[in-house]
Amino acid sequence: MTLTYPNFAFDITATDPAGSRARVGRLATPHGVLQTPAFIFCATKAAMKAASPAMLRDEKTTIILSNTYHLMLQPGADLVEKMGGLHRFMGWDGPMLTDSGGFQIFSLGHGSVADEIKGRREIARPKTLLKISEKGAAFRSYIDGSKHLLTPEGSIDIQRKLGADLIVTFDECTPFHSDRTYTERSLRLSNRWADRCIAEFERGHTGRQALYGILQGGIYEDLRHEAAEFVNSRPFFGNAVGGTLGGNTAQMDEVVGYAMAKLDRTRPTHLLGIGGIRDIFAGVAQGIDSFDCVSPTRIARHGAALMPGVKGERVNLRNARFREDPAPVDETCGCYCCRNFSRAYLHHLLKAEELLGLQLLTQHNIAVMNRLTREIQAAIPEGRLGELRKRWVAE
Amino acid sequence: MTLTYPNFAFDITATDPAGSRARVGRLATPHGVLQTPAFIFCATKAAMKAASPAMLRDEKTTIILSNTYHLMLQPGADLVEKMGGLHRFMGWDGPMLTDSGGFQIFSLGHGSVADEIKGRREIARPKTLLKISEKGAAFRSYIDGSKHLLTPEGSIDIQRKLGADLIVTFDECTPFHSDRTYTERSLRLSNRWADRCIAEFERGHTGRQALYGILQGGIYEDLRHEAAEFVNSRPFFGNAVGGTLGGNTAQMDEVVGYAMAKLDRTRPTHLLGIGGIRDIFAGVAQGIDSFDCVSPTRIARHGAALMPGVKGERVNLRNARFREDPAPVDETCGCYCCRNFSRAYLHHLLKAEELLGLQLLTQHNIAVMNRLTREIQAAIPEGRLGELRKRWVAE
Repeated sequence: MTLTYPNFAFDITATDPAGSRARVGRLATPHGVLQTPAFIFCATKAAMKAASPAMLRDEKTTIILSNTYHLMLQPGADLVEKMGGLHRFMGWDGPMLTDSGGFQIFSLGHGSVADEIKGRREIARPKTLLKISEKGAAFRSYIDGSKHLLTPEGSIDIQRKLGADLIVTFDECTPFHSDRTYTERSLRLSNRWADRCIAEFERGHTGRQALYGILQGGIYEDLRHEAAEFVNSRPFFGNAVGGTLGGNTAQMDEVVGYAMAKLDRTRPTHLLGIGGIRDIFAGVAQGIDSFDCVSPTRIARHGAALMPGVKGERVNLRNARFREDPAPVDETCGCYCCRNFSRAYLHHLLKAEELLGLQLLTQHNIAVMNRLTREIQAAIPEGRLGELRKRWVAE
Repeated sequence: MTLTYPNFAFDITATDPAGSRARVGRLATPHGVLQTPAFIFCATKAAMKAASPAMLRDEKTTIILSNTYHLMLQPGADLVEKMGGLHRFMGWDGPMLTDSGGFQIFSLGHGSVADEIKGRREIARPKTLLKISEKGAAFRSYIDGSKHLLTPEGSIDIQRKLGADLIVTFDECTPFHSDRTYTERSLRLSNRWADRCIAEFERGHTGRQALYGILQGGIYEDLRHEAAEFVNSRPFFGNAVGGTLGGNTAQMDEVVGYAMAKLDRTRPTHLLGIGGIRDIFAGVAQGIDSFDCVSPTRIARHGAALMPGVKGERVNLRNARFREDPAPVDETCGCYCCRNFSRAYLHHLLKAEELLGLQLLTQHNIAVMNRLTREIQAAIPEGRLGELRKRWVAE
């Protein structure tokens, strides 16, 4: 199988003279070029929660993603296609990624707590995953309970209609508690699904989209190697490390290491669902080029502002100590929120349950993530990644 | 009693050659000049709901108001003063008005449905008004049930600490069902309170604020005349028509007419709590210079977009007929929402319960109100008010 991506390019423009695997890249898409390492913000349902595209641009956002699972159910891929595709529909003309739908089907489906629904921990969540078969995954809609079957071909078809620049293969996302036998069988299934995705992608290939392969394999070194060798052998434009990364950060670093050890390093490599500041530094040092996570914008809606160099990586503006604090959230930040408003004002907005509080903190957290990746891009060629990490991460 | 307002001015720059009482004015404040007729947006708790000051400016907003009642309870006037006043606290450097607290105490206090809480009609609301006496109004906090006494002096003191450009006297806002005897007694009480407000205002007068008197008198012609003659005789910078305006629009026009018949027309005159498009045209024709209402931004949060020339003055984007509609909310609008997004997208955002939907519709409705008043300002000197009204109001 061969596939070409004439409208895409990934060039590594700098590596780390200090010896880590970190690199700076230039990722060209039909909707513009972005520098890597990059953070991809989650516009789950074709919208960033509490942030307009104008706010994203103001805070120097370069790339966002949207979720196939949510969009296939509401408003539906056909409608988005009819409206000119996701870029036009949601008013974002920059680079964009869609996922395959797999993560949500499986994370919501097991009745488990996906990152993005942690805020609703107390709500009993019915298992919506009905059956995984060779054909695909049958599940119930989280909106109305209706039955759906998502197949590899269906996922690619939906992602083609949505029209994001970067799309990914449909995989089974194995949960943390899966044993080795299950994980191995699942990896092989995901790989067979990946080949069907490639075939479907090739059938409709217009050159306007590039396909990423996903590595599963759980926490098992040999399975992650097998996964890496599989995606290396397939004509993907990029790769993404998916599935469980273990139960703590040390294990996460280890598992990412298993994957990165064997991956073709000429391709851009994404780490799915990771957005902690420490985790990003760790991933970058292992050669990861992009990250995504709902966390920066989700914690904003709970009153938390990302803060470099602070234990826990954030401060919660609901805390009474900010009640009379005239300082901006972060003096060194420069985002719209920090240029114009005090901690005392943010505290007031949160206490008064004003939507504006969520908007301003969302904007701040977006700015922080973009600044983080810009500073990482600048630090890598100068061998300053370790020094930069000390300023951002409180150990 | 005399009071001067060296940093304020109100000049009538044009009147209506077609014969109505409409006029165009120039209202100068320490935070800038605004053209009248103007619409004053409600930033109730020192924040526009779902709109940042940047969004307000983008849509050409000239003046906002904030509510003494809410701010005295959370975060408290002393804190706002300590943070440099309301302008600095909330990042709005343009003209601003605060009300006296009276309206909320009395409208929430009677357990009735104030305009701003119509959206929560189904919630049983305890009566929080405890006692009206010569001294002031005792009430319970809507936040924690604590007891408070707001007096004329207290209201002026709070408004001084908040620091808005335009402030108003503390009055009893009589509900629609009040009889003549009650309304008359209440008017006299409000007038005595107004004199105490003037005395308190004078004591702390720095020239940075201008005082508006309020006309009560309910639906009774002679009482409205009495109220007008009272405020005329006092050294207010401007006047505001308050209290009930009756049970329908015909009666509203009538009651406003009673007040305007006797009012000193050299002063700027505000009509409290009115923001319907038809009502604004009617008020302007009677010589009203400014209006305020939570309605434009509140209905946005329920999915409604203001729309010129449409029955009901709005369309609801939740309606299924917009599901596949690629047109902007209003092609003639030009706001951020209409320049960038389709009705289909707004419909999707509302169905998906995305905060962005509320933000975009809020921004649209702000733009519509500002465009309405700009067009009214342009139409008056050319005698085109009636023609303009035909374009905006579906009869």
